[in-house]
Amino acid sequence: MSRKIRMGMIGGGRGAFIGNVHRMAAALDGQIELVCGAFSSDPQKSVESGKDLFLDPKRVYRNYETMITEESKLDSETRMDFVSVVTPNHMHYAPAKMAIENGFHVVCDKPLCYDLNEAYSLQESINKSGLLFALTHNYTGYPMVKQARQMILNEELGKVRKVNVEYTQGWLSTFLENTNQKQASWRTDPDKSGVAGAIGDIGTHAENLVEYISGLKIQELCADISTMVEGRKLDDDGSILLRFNNGARGILSASQISAGEENKLSIRIYGELGGLEWNQMEPNTLVVRWLDKPTQLYRAGVGQLYPETNAHLRIPAGHPEGYIEAFANIYRNFAKCIQARITGDVVDPLFMDYPKIEDGVRGMEFIYKVIESSNSMDKWVKM
Amino acid sequence: MSRKIRMGMIGGGRGAFIGNVHRMAAALDGQIELVCGAFSSDPQKSVESGKDLFLDPKRVYRNYETMITEESKLDSETRMDFVSVVTPNHMHYAPAKMAIENGFHVVCDKPLCYDLNEAYSLQESINKSGLLFALTHNYTGYPMVKQARQMILNEELGKVRKVNVEYTQGWLSTFLENTNQKQASWRTDPDKSGVAGAIGDIGTHAENLVEYISGLKIQELCADISTMVEGRKLDDDGSILLRFNNGARGILSASQISAGEENKLSIRIYGELGGLEWNQMEPNTLVVRWLDKPTQLYRAGVGQLYPETNAHLRIPAGHPEGYIEAFANIYRNFAKCIQARITGDVVDPLFMDYPKIEDGVRGMEFIYKVIESSNSMDKWVKM
Amino acid sequence: MSRKIRMGMIGGGRGAFIGNVHRMAAALDGQIELVCGAFSSDPQKSVESGKDLFLDPKRVYRNYETMITEESKLDSETRMDFVSVVTPNHMHYAPAKMAIENGFHVVCDKPLCYDLNEAYSLQESINKSGLLFALTHNYTGYPMVKQARQMILNEELGKVRKVNVEYTQGWLSTFLENTNQKQASWRTDPDKSGVAGAIGDIGTHAENLVEYISGLKIQELCADISTMVEGRKLDDDGSILLRFNNGARGILSASQISAGEENKLSIRIYGELGGLEWNQMEPNTLVVRWLDKPTQLYRAGVGQLYPETNAHLRIPAGHPEGYIEAFANIYRNFAKCIQARITGDVVDPLFMDYPKIEDGVRGMEFIYKVIESSNSMDKWVKM
Amino acid sequence: MSRKIRMGMIGGGRGAFIGNVHRMAAALDGQIELVCGAFSSDPQKSVESGKDLFLDPKRVYRNYETMITEESKLDSETRMDFVSVVTPNHMHYAPAKMAIENGFHVVCDKPLCYDLNEAYSLQESINKSGLLFALTHNYTGYPMVKQARQMILNEELGKVRKVNVEYTQGWLSTFLENTNQKQASWRTDPDKSGVAGAIGDIGTHAENLVEYISGLKIQELCADISTMVEGRKLDDDGSILLRFNNGARGILSASQISAGEENKLSIRIYGELGGLEWNQMEPNTLVVRWLDKPTQLYRAGVGQLYPETNAHLRIPAGHPEGYIEAFANIYRNFAKCIQARITGDVVDPLFMDYPKIEDGVRGMEFIYKVIESSNSMDKWVKM
Repeated sequence: MSRKIRMGMIGGGRGAFIGNVHRMAAALDGQIELVCGAFSSDPQKSVESGKDLFLDPKRVYRNYETMITEESKLDSETRMDFVSVVTPNHMHYAPAKMAIENGFHVVCDKPLCYDLNEAYSLQESINKSGLLFALTHNYTGYPMVKQARQMILNEELGKVRKVNVEYTQGWLSTFLENTNQKQASWRTDPDKSGVAGAIGDIGTHAENLVEYISGLKIQELCADISTMVEGRKLDDDGSILLRFNNGARGILSASQISAGEENKLSIRIYGELGGLEWNQMEPNTLVVRWLDKPTQLYRAGVGQLYPETNAHLRIPAGHPEGYIEAFANIYRNFAKCIQARITGDVVDPLFMDYPKIEDGVRGMEFIYKVIESSNSMDKWVKM
Repeated sequence: MSRKIRMGMIGGGRGAFIGNVHRMAAALDGQIELVCGAFSSDPQKSVESGKDLFLDPKRVYRNYETMITEESKLDSETRMDFVSVVTPNHMHYAPAKMAIENGFHVVCDKPLCYDLNEAYSLQESINKSGLLFALTHNYTGYPMVKQARQMILNEELGKVRKVNVEYTQGWLSTFLENTNQKQASWRTDPDKSGVAGAIGDIGTHAENLVEYISGLKIQELCADISTMVEGRKLDDDGSILLRFNNGARGILSASQISAGEENKLSIRIYGELGGLEWNQMEPNTLVVRWLDKPTQLYRAGVGQLYPETNAHLRIPAGHPEGYIEAFANIYRNFAKCIQARITGDVVDPLFMDYPKIEDGVRGMEFIYKVIESSNSMDKWVKM
Repeated sequence: MSRKIRMGMIGGGRGAFIGNVHRMAAALDGQIELVCGAFSSDPQKSVESGKDLFLDPKRVYRNYETMITEESKLDSETRMDFVSVVTPNHMHYAPAKMAIENGFHVVCDKPLCYDLNEAYSLQESINKSGLLFALTHNYTGYPMVKQARQMILNEELGKVRKVNVEYTQGWLSTFLENTNQKQASWRTDPDKSGVAGAIGDIGTHAENLVEYISGLKIQELCADISTMVEGRKLDDDGSILLRFNNGARGILSASQISAGEENKLSIRIYGELGGLEWNQMEPNTLVVRWLDKPTQLYRAGVGQLYPETNAHLRIPAGHPEGYIEAFANIYRNFAKCIQARITGDVVDPLFMDYPKIEDGVRGMEFIYKVIESSNSMDKWVKM
Repeated sequence: MSRKIRMGMIGGGRGAFIGNVHRMAAALDGQIELVCGAFSSDPQKSVESGKDLFLDPKRVYRNYETMITEESKLDSETRMDFVSVVTPNHMHYAPAKMAIENGFHVVCDKPLCYDLNEAYSLQESINKSGLLFALTHNYTGYPMVKQARQMILNEELGKVRKVNVEYTQGWLSTFLENTNQKQASWRTDPDKSGVAGAIGDIGTHAENLVEYISGLKIQELCADISTMVEGRKLDDDGSILLRFNNGARGILSASQISAGEENKLSIRIYGELGGLEWNQMEPNTLVVRWLDKPTQLYRAGVGQLYPETNAHLRIPAGHPEGYIEAFANIYRNFAKCIQARITGDVVDPLFMDYPKIEDGVRGMEFIYKVIESSNSMDKWVKM
């Protein structure tokens, strides 16, 4: 019989940004219940975070190892169904691996891991286990992103020729990591973030988005990565030429030093018959341009949209859904897939659409290829 | 000790639009738990709705009377703290009244009641009871609406002179009530909606928004209300000249037959020094124009915003929050106020900001004055 | 044989705003040559203005009477074909009248005259003379305004139900007329402007635009006019409810105290099937919304536009044309009509589309009815 | 004594697009008079074009050689002051060279020449002659482009770090040159256009704009140029990584196969303190973003703009100026510089701001470097 799916959280204690986003996203649709957590490497902070969340104190754990071990001992009517890993990059692998080995499904924040070896190892574990794994490349959860993808896949715009994708921010325009700003500190620290800064943090979102919508694969790339803020240890800006497997060309830009920009994830894809444009900061509109016909504004909730789009909308046209709702679409779909395993039902394929381990590995490979290209005097590096 | 606040819902069964919005809004911040409901006048539908929501079947009631009666008998560690009334207008009064009489706080959808007498009666009950009451004029829950209000109240724009507010939709452009569309049916039915159609359904949102942001009161109005779709029983379009208590003038327009418009709630307020503009469909931006200086785009999460704004934001700049988040701000604040009663703490005044019974009564008076004006050949009707 | 059409200008000396606009508009398409002028009531200023314009000093006149008299004596290969009257309102009638009586065609700035009697008298003169008369209600010269008109006239949007038109500025938010600002001084002076301020200056543009695009006539109106700036002698803000001859309703707003607004002339017209929106400050786009279909952006130069639209475009899509080009469309059409009289050719009906004396009289009637309504306690005044 | 400056035109006969733009731009401000022309390589077409323009038939010449020769013989009160060369690229050099050798100033359309040798030769001629030369990189004529440049040069945004510039069109998405479309035919023909297609036609505009606004020089580039439409002989799409002389990085994209785009010339420049954005299709707005302060919309005519901006504006705020006005700024400035030579006055430095021979040579070098880079497997090519 169907029931709420039970989540345990690793990371996301007081003051964390993304942990709370995960919790809101998980709660929104009433499919998931937060039942336990190891919210911080500081046990006291973990306890206080659990109180804030009105959790049973017995299920607020001092660390993720204890949590996974103790939850495993609980009966199946009680124990968590999956863990959500919302720690910095260098702390994704170990808890995710242990959770899998103990039979728990996993949601993990992006990028997948600290390095490529961890990524391959995690992929192997997941594939062997048969468990479910979701990576929160949340931007593909937006309904109008799904509309864009379906329009391309159904060849409404003809063969794709040109792609412009960018993820542009300005929040790292100053040497913020020197001011104890928590987000800046770990994201610019090679020991926590991995080999890349902006490319890993936001470049992978752009890469994921462009391959998701276009259905194409990046085949070659030529990257120019730089660190604009003095003293910073990782890249904070990068520009990349792309060549796709169908012959299309493109540009991917990721920047965290474009002063004044908030969170400009933006994509344009041009085919033989027309082009489409989507901007994350105005996510309910998909602009579709045509050869010598009036431009169309596809809007969430208006007219005949693809089932894939409608399945990820909650409210009528003109009532804006945003970032949390897109994020929640991943959790909702993930929960529906777990639910189906519990009830033995077949999953509606519409719910199987969320980023998976392969997307995570792809993102890690992208990071490594970009760094390789940037260090090379050869023009093109193959993916 | 603080705990999750417990909600019982009246209305909002399968297929309802606004009931699900209320549930998502209540769930978002992890402060409220749905524990029971009487979801439909059809008991079977109520039961099925309860199953969808994974509720304890014993607390899924056949009707609101039973729910209130039975919940009253439960111990204080179990029973609901408040009811959320999400039925059509003609079914607001009775359950809200009974809930109050049994000591439950109340959240109620807008407009407050079926008629003005009910409104006054409810106001009296609430005031006598000392219980909390929130009306879901959700649009005032948006952070940038709060920013606008603070800018006006702090006289950044000088004395207000001119106001343009409109709530424009197109969904009732055809005789939709003839097609069994549930939303259209009751909203155009005088037996369920009351004396007004568009004016009650959306005109009151505009009235509430303009008085909330401007801090002014409408003193006189001159209305031209019409029914554009043949066969329709209530108004579907109205234009109203406004005069405010400080001498400012304005225009309020409410339309449900402006074909092609989605949910265009839009307001501009001009003072002696500048003007501001907010549009619900792009809610994270507040445009502020000045006498001969560059226009400013105030954005959610950017720069020095008022505490009242920041208290209603969840995520950083450029990660769009939308309709559900604004709606959730009412629930979150309401829950915080109940929580304070439970713990005996003083409520942070920032959380006391949600629409209350007075706003509901004001809205009902507005409806009646608009109808009076529209039927009169006198130019001005006093509020 | 065709030749350049010869223009004489009355008013528009150094420092004038609109005179230079008329000259640029007349020059743009190479159809018209400025040959003479009486540019100022100050003869010295007139002479200097003529020098700036590289005119033959013999044809720079001390006043309009002299100009009309002297030009009349020149042979037909030399003398001006028409006068352009670009003086303040109170100085439209006399020169226009005299020009007509001497056989010259006339272009006149708006509003037509100082008062309604002058308007009727001028109309009579023109009609008797058979001469050509153009009123520079320049906003109807925009190509996408013509597209809008054709879409309505061809019933693409069905029967019109609701109209929102506004002309909103902020430049008179302060007591500017007290600072020797020339534009402000005469426009707020009842001796120069006539009975109305904002209503005459910009309200008539809105009135002209809405009747031009919709093809409807305002039948009744209810106005609330005010003067917001202390000491000002004429209205600076007005809001007007409209009822049209086909049963449609509307709102017209004209304001010069909406602080921070530049020159926001904006119109929306909703029919049974869809609605359109045009904004003067982004004039190359016409937004067309439909019942439950994607919104379309009609753009100047893109796709199949009406011949009436294309005839008023000069350059390809994406090369923005603006205010001067729209203004020039009136002059170009007017010149083509004069040209046809010279050559004896039939005029292409596309060139006959410019505002004429009837539009001017209509505008004056509108001004008087608005003032009447604003002074009345009756709700509706008939046009 | 000052007088109208006299222009002779080479090219721009009936059916040409850019010739008419040049004529409107030259006429707009009343500073320039078209006195003669050799409008077409087809003498009959030249004659008819002269008639359309109401020119003296004696000064409508069969070819440019005759025109330059015959005009040279006229007295100084009559003969043209400068020629305007508006032919396809391969026909720029010879007439410009001959005009210079005969003592006429020259306005020339872009790109400067057919090949780099011609460019250097023309530069030598101009420099020796002391004559004036203007290249119609018209986009730098926009007032808000000048505002952007001044803000950067005055370091309002701090040191520049990142630049995104693109010129994106879709009109060559099909094999249009096969359909006798005149513009497409010569622009895609290596015999008329030179070594590059899109890069020469529009890429040079982007290059000119970015160096003009930023005050920086492109130092190295890495280009990926392609031809997307089968059968086409020149490039129709290109993406280029840029490195500037101050260490800034950038991306330049030029595309004529981005289906559905009109004429999207767009630039963003980010400095340490903020970023600015300008879009040609909405040219009267300059968006300026700041680190954690509200975004500003600088608008033509509003507030304190730089003198360089104001000197290129004609009408008040909110009255949109467009492409022709920006183009006319080049002609107006050029005419003022010629005027000063005639009267012996000193030129106001504000009028000396138009693209010159150096800009033309720079553009030609850019074309050659992009082609070199695209053919190379080395990552970076130095400018």
